Amino acid sequence: MTPPAGAAAVTPGTVYLVGAGPGSLDLLTMRAYAVLSSASCLLHDDLVSAEVLSLALPHALVRNVGKRCGKKTITQEEINSWMIQYAKDGHSVVRLKSGDPLLFGRAAEEIAALTDAAVPFEVIPGVSAGFAAAALARLPLTGRISNSRVLFATRHLSAGSTNGLAGITPEATLVLYMPGRDYAAIASELGANGWSAETTCLVASALGTESQRLESCVLRDLPAMTPLPAPVVMMFYAVENSGGGSGADSDRRGSMF
Amino acid sequence: MTPPAGAAAVTPGTVYLVGAGPGSLDLLTMRAYAVLSSASCLLHDDLVSAEVLSLALPHALVRNVGKRCGKKTITQEEINSWMIQYAKDGHSVVRLKSGDPLLFGRAAEEIAALTDAAVPFEVIPGVSAGFAAAALARLPLTGRISNSRVLFATRHLSAGSTNGLAGITPEATLVLYMPGRDYAAIASELGANGWSAETTCLVASALGTESQRLESCVLRDLPAMTPLPAPVVMMFYAVENSGGGSGADSDRRGSMF
Repeated sequence: MTPPAGAAAVTPGTVYLVGAGPGSLDLLTMRAYAVLSSASCLLHDDLVSAEVLSLALPHALVRNVGKRCGKKTITQEEINSWMIQYAKDGHSVVRLKSGDPLLFGRAAEEIAALTDAAVPFEVIPGVSAGFAAAALARLPLTGRISNSRVLFATRHLSAGSTNGLAGITPEATLVLYMPGRDYAAIASELGANGWSAETTCLVASALGTESQRLESCVLRDLPAMTPLPAPVVMMFYAVENSGGGSGADSDRRGSMF
Repeated sequence: MTPPAGAAAVTPGTVYLVGAGPGSLDLLTMRAYAVLSSASCLLHDDLVSAEVLSLALPHALVRNVGKRCGKKTITQEEINSWMIQYAKDGHSVVRLKSGDPLLFGRAAEEIAALTDAAVPFEVIPGVSAGFAAAALARLPLTGRISNSRVLFATRHLSAGSTNGLAGITPEATLVLYMPGRDYAAIASELGANGWSAETTCLVASALGTESQRLESCVLRDLPAMTPLPAPVVMMFYAVENSGGGSGADSDRRGSMF
C-alpha cells in the first residue's frame, strides 16, 4: 500500500484537536494518522487506546491529561495552558480525544483558550463511538420508513450530576454516551418517556480494544443485564408508529443477532 | 510514512458497506482506504468524490449506482442484486456511500438483501458530514453548560415528501441533512418550534471538494441567504436557557467567524 496522498506534515507552533475514533487504528482518519505520526507533542485523554498512541514518534513528548472518573487530578485550565505553552515553545501539539473531538468533550473551552492566546489550531474529526457500534452490530441508525432521526445524548453531564433522560421520546434512535451503571434507571426513565418494552437496546463496551463487547436485548430486559466495563455507548432503536406500513421490520433488521 | 498496520486485505465474495466520509482522502478511515485500494468492484453513490474513487485499482470494476435527484434510473432492487451477483461471482465488492453508511441511507435494505442471500459483509463507518462541518467551523456540537444533545435529522424523507421539522425544539444542536433550498421555510418552521431568531446557523456545501463552502448567519437572516449547491448540511446551535449561568457564551464560541 502506498502512503496516503494529501497528508500534509504538521506545523510547529500549531495545535491539532484530533478525534482518535473508538480505538482501533482501522478507524482513525488518514489525516489523524498523518498528524499523530509526525507531531512532536501529544496530550491525550485516558480513553485513547495504546494502539493509537503507538503511532507517536519515538522522541515525541506524550502526556496523559485524562481526568479519571471525576477525580480531577488535572484541571481543564492546566490542559489549556500546557497546549498553549507547548505550541509557543515550537511544538506541533496533538490534543487527542477519543471518538470525535467536538462531541461531549471540553473542546469549547480549549478552542476559546487557544483563540484567546492566538495559537493557530486545526480540528480533525473522528468516528464517534455510536457510529462504530452501529457498524459492528450492522444495525442502521435510521430507516427509510421507520425512525428517521438520531439523537446523541449523555446521561452524565458533569461529576456527580445526571440530567437523566428527560424529554427523550422514541421519535429518534437514541445513542447514549456515558450511560453509567444504573441500567434499571435508564430503562425506567425511557419507559416513562413512552419507549416500548420491546425496544431493541444495544450495549457496546470498550470498542476498538481487545476486550470489546457488544450485547443486545430489549428494553424490558435491560435492568437484568450486568453492566459492561466503561467506556460504554448504548443505542435504543425506536420504530415510529406514525408512518405505519410495511418495511419497518426489514429496515430494522440487523444480522449480527 | 509507513503503511498502516492491521489493514487486512479484502476477501473475495464479500461485500463491504463503506463510509467514504465527506469527500477528501484526509477524512477516509484507514480501513476504508485499505478496502477501497484492494477491492475488485466498487458500486458508489453520486456524492462520492472523484478523489476517493481514484483509490480504486486500475482494473477494478467501478459503477455509479446513484439515484440522481429523485430520478430513479437505478432501483434499490437493482443495486441489491448487483452487489449480490458480483460477490457470488467472486468479486470483493465495495458498496461506497458518502459520509457514514448507516445514517440516512438505504443500508437497511441492502443489509436485509445480503442477509437473505447469505452473502458475507462488513460495515465500515465513516465521518458523517455534520462532524466534518463542525470541525471546519471549529464549533463544538455540544457544550458543557449549554446544549448537551445533538439531533441528526433530515428534511427530505423520500422523493417529493418532506416531514418538515415537526417536533424539533431547541433542546439539542440540530444537524440537518438534505435541507432542500427553501431556507425561508426552514427558518419559519424552526421559529415556530421555539428556536430564537438569534440562533447561530451554519451552512456547509460540497464538503471535502474544491468548491467547498461554509457560511454562517443567525436564524433571522437565513431566509435571505442564497441557497448553496447540494450536498448541503446545516447546523443550528441552540443554547439552553434552563442551565443558566456563565460559560455558555464562551462554550459556544467558534473562531472561524
